Amino acid sequence: MKIAIAQLNFHVGNFEYNFNKIKDSIQRGREEGAQLVIFSELSVCGYAPHDLFEKKDFFDKCQHWLQRIAELTEGIAVIVGCPSLNPSNNGKKLFNSAVFIQNKQIISLYHKALLPAYDVFDEYRYFEPGNTFQTISCGDKKIGITICEDLWDFQPVENDFGKSHLYQCSPMEETMKLKPDFIVNISASPFENNKIKTKREIFSRHAKNSRIPIIYVNQVGANTELIFDGGSQIYNSFGELISLLNFFEEDFFVFEDTFLQQKSAITVHEPNNIGLMHDALVLGIKDYFEKSGLKKAIIGLSGGIDSAIVCYLAVAALGNENVRVLLMPSQYSSLHSVGDAVKLAENLQIQYDTIGIQSIFKEVNNNLAPLFSGNKEDVTEENIQARIRGILLMAVSNKKGNLLLNTTNKSEMAVGYGTLYGDMNGALSVIGDVYKKDVYKIAEYINREKEIIPHHTIIKPPSAELRPNQKDSDSLPDYDVLDGILFQYIELQRSAEEIIRTGYDGETVYRIIKMVNYCEYKRFQAPPVLRVSSKAFGFGRRLPLVAQY
Amino acid sequence: MKIAIAQLNFHVGNFEYNFNKIKDSIQRGREEGAQLVIFSELSVCGYAPHDLFEKKDFFDKCQHWLQRIAELTEGIAVIVGCPSLNPSNNGKKLFNSAVFIQNKQIISLYHKALLPAYDVFDEYRYFEPGNTFQTISCGDKKIGITICEDLWDFQPVENDFGKSHLYQCSPMEETMKLKPDFIVNISASPFENNKIKTKREIFSRHAKNSRIPIIYVNQVGANTELIFDGGSQIYNSFGELISLLNFFEEDFFVFEDTFLQQKSAITVHEPNNIGLMHDALVLGIKDYFEKSGLKKAIIGLSGGIDSAIVCYLAVAALGNENVRVLLMPSQYSSLHSVGDAVKLAENLQIQYDTIGIQSIFKEVNNNLAPLFSGNKEDVTEENIQARIRGILLMAVSNKKGNLLLNTTNKSEMAVGYGTLYGDMNGALSVIGDVYKKDVYKIAEYINREKEIIPHHTIIKPPSAELRPNQKDSDSLPDYDVLDGILFQYIELQRSAEEIIRTGYDGETVYRIIKMVNYCEYKRFQAPPVLRVSSKAFGFGRRLPLVAQY
Repeated sequence: MKIAIAQLNFHVGNFEYNFNKIKDSIQRGREEGAQLVIFSELSVCGYAPHDLFEKKDFFDKCQHWLQRIAELTEGIAVIVGCPSLNPSNNGKKLFNSAVFIQNKQIISLYHKALLPAYDVFDEYRYFEPGNTFQTISCGDKKIGITICEDLWDFQPVENDFGKSHLYQCSPMEETMKLKPDFIVNISASPFENNKIKTKREIFSRHAKNSRIPIIYVNQVGANTELIFDGGSQIYNSFGELISLLNFFEEDFFVFEDTFLQQKSAITVHEPNNIGLMHDALVLGIKDYFEKSGLKKAIIGLSGGIDSAIVCYLAVAALGNENVRVLLMPSQYSSLHSVGDAVKLAENLQIQYDTIGIQSIFKEVNNNLAPLFSGNKEDVTEENIQARIRGILLMAVSNKKGNLLLNTTNKSEMAVGYGTLYGDMNGALSVIGDVYKKDVYKIAEYINREKEIIPHHTIIKPPSAELRPNQKDSDSLPDYDVLDGILFQYIELQRSAEEIIRTGYDGETVYRIIKMVNYCEYKRFQAPPVLRVSSKAFGFGRRLPLVAQY
Repeated sequence: MKIAIAQLNFHVGNFEYNFNKIKDSIQRGREEGAQLVIFSELSVCGYAPHDLFEKKDFFDKCQHWLQRIAELTEGIAVIVGCPSLNPSNNGKKLFNSAVFIQNKQIISLYHKALLPAYDVFDEYRYFEPGNTFQTISCGDKKIGITICEDLWDFQPVENDFGKSHLYQCSPMEETMKLKPDFIVNISASPFENNKIKTKREIFSRHAKNSRIPIIYVNQVGANTELIFDGGSQIYNSFGELISLLNFFEEDFFVFEDTFLQQKSAITVHEPNNIGLMHDALVLGIKDYFEKSGLKKAIIGLSGGIDSAIVCYLAVAALGNENVRVLLMPSQYSSLHSVGDAVKLAENLQIQYDTIGIQSIFKEVNNNLAPLFSGNKEDVTEENIQARIRGILLMAVSNKKGNLLLNTTNKSEMAVGYGTLYGDMNGALSVIGDVYKKDVYKIAEYINREKEIIPHHTIIKPPSAELRPNQKDSDSLPDYDVLDGILFQYIELQRSAEEIIRTGYDGETVYRIIKMVNYCEYKRFQAPPVLRVSSKAFGFGRRLPLVAQY
């Protein structure tokens, strides 16, 4: 029997668009002689629809389009992901299901049993967990079906109470007990730094221990913050990786089931995390624009490294004809800032315009002078400059139809080093999940063949240039220290005391943690952040605003 | 046996503060002869800590302070809410528990079984559901313990797939089977319009059907968006309400257990929803400031009704000495706007300052002119005005330490009638969950004894005054039509077709729904909204940004 796996880029709620993709893949599968075509988790509606699942008419549309898909299956079988109705009067209204369709008939449904409820995942909000395990028969094969987390087993992180599952049973063990010829795992598993390796280890171990081949079919493409990385994989019963589909793009693969029995491990390189992060961010920008029906971006270019790499990533995603930048120097801007910004714009061949902010700054100060007499200059005036830049960028955005991209990095966002309604503006935060040290690594990666990000942008000390001779290092520790503390606090959920025990200065650790906690209110109003780590700012990290802690 | 219920205003994560409150209540209970003092759900840490539950050191602190509470219980018993550890290697790490302590010993724990996972509730994210039911013995009484939702039974809304529970069992039935003398329900149940009546009906029915008295102990006070309304209640075995504690303030009540057997129903008025909403919003503002350690607010006063009632509510919460306003007229402002604003400021005796925005607006436009030549005036210029006002308000906020309160109402927020980084600014959205029609009702309620909100502010047609002779009705239907459609779409989760069937014009319904869906991106960056309805904007309503639907 020939099997096809279709790794597709779905659009949440865009049923017709998703249907057409599924239709094309069924057709392609048929042309290439496949008897079974496998699609990813919730492929009918795209992952993740969030609270659209609470609307009955959204569910009705899922069912309507599922029927339309069923009609396409004459002489062929498919597995698609789709929500289904819980017939019981008790419990959540929906299941997260894998639907097996053959010859225009819905043959059986499997309901996801291990629902994730941590970080960006809220599946207990919508779904009743399944508790029935069965195999399906297709051709002469007995197939076990699982959905995403069903096949995961977490090694919980010591301090992180979040990353554990509710316990109903082990869907993996239950499925293996049924002794299927192979196990299909349909997924919607988003990219995060270092996860690709973990995923491989888990699949390989399960396949090897159970001596059952595993076919993992993942979604690809970004839906706002979440960037699904594709990379669908097949493991033989020795736990060897025998096929790996492309990362960050659609892919399609057809194989004879005998292939699953072969000892034919492929060699894969150790993942280059910076390269993957780069590719993820480019896809994140690209899909945000495409799925919004938009093409053009605008960025405020300061001459610093953050706006430089965001600019490069935007050009890579949208094309240089669709990216324009604004240079907005003030009396505190250094000459090299403007020069570095111009050089980058020229390297990327993008339109740039310069609007000084001094005269507006002066006018704002004049108008405030009667209220501020007797007060001395402070952070207020720094914020005013950042907010004037925000006005100008949004004005061009409104007038010309270019979406504003935010250029704040994760280290700044963590400690609140940025102005709300100023440089924190933007439709999408491109590098809000990238620590400053990784911003430098991405710049080096971009420059690996030739200098695109100006050398001077990379080597000069970071500065917000909101007062004379200001440097980031005036108020923050060096970025390697800062990022080290932040990573332990945010990603590893360690306490101050535990971080100090790893060798950091106590006073610094307490100060940084206080800054992080204090500025939850700023992040509450920040743009959505492209997620590339295990703990990004945004809806996967929910902290109270006025907590004392 | 004498029993005390302590309805307290806890502060999330502020363990010492919460401990001191609990300590005082134990002392008061002891002085008044109580043998048992009952506190609300998660009283040790306050509700809702959100992802602080994922941090091991947060849990450790809960345990530390629980021990400190235990030490206070010589000769007395208490029931407090506190997370506890799930000893199993499987499942979520924590339970949401009611801890029974007597004579310095932790006697037993009950784990919440019906965990809410809808709207603002994410308990499956942190907690393993309990599945063991037992009674505790205190004095000569056998007491059944339940936590919040354990005693709820939802009548699911037809179109709303969200408001259903995961089904494990019915904790209410299981507890009643144990035939306790009475049932205690410790809660952290936030205020929402119309919920008070529903709650009464549920408790009354359960008490009556089971012939078991119910003691409901709720949290009071606001933690950012969530406003816990207090109103703890006692029902006798006939289902009669025999005691009702105050709404929106701390309260304490001691009674003999024989009281539970008496036929002594109290008379309560039908709740006045507008009055309750008013009280909830005042408490919401008050606690946001107090728990942030801040005192002073600033508001942009336009002369319109929204900023007027926010200003009144802020004064009611913080005192007139802590509220200042800015009037920021432009060339499009009508004379009456300034007059109405001044009149309100005088009625409330608050400081007001006037800063015209024309000269700044002119300077911004001059600077943009080279880029905008050939483009005609459009919404860009309207947004620039709103954003200049945003800069001025934030400048005064930064310089003087007054938090900016946002004045956008729910109707505007729904359709995106507002400028991001302009009038959508603010630390807290006061009326972002109040439809325009209720804004008028609150104004009438405020004026019930004398004219505080100027009459002209109430009767004039609403306008943003961002272009000559602009009226809200130029681009929006009348607010009664708009609010009617929005309520069905947002609160009732109805589809366009269903809303049209209730009598609204089809073209209008489709247009409004499209506006709501389109501007999810704006609301993503909006301030936290004080929640007074069953579906507020914010973290209880999670919709994808680039979905097509």
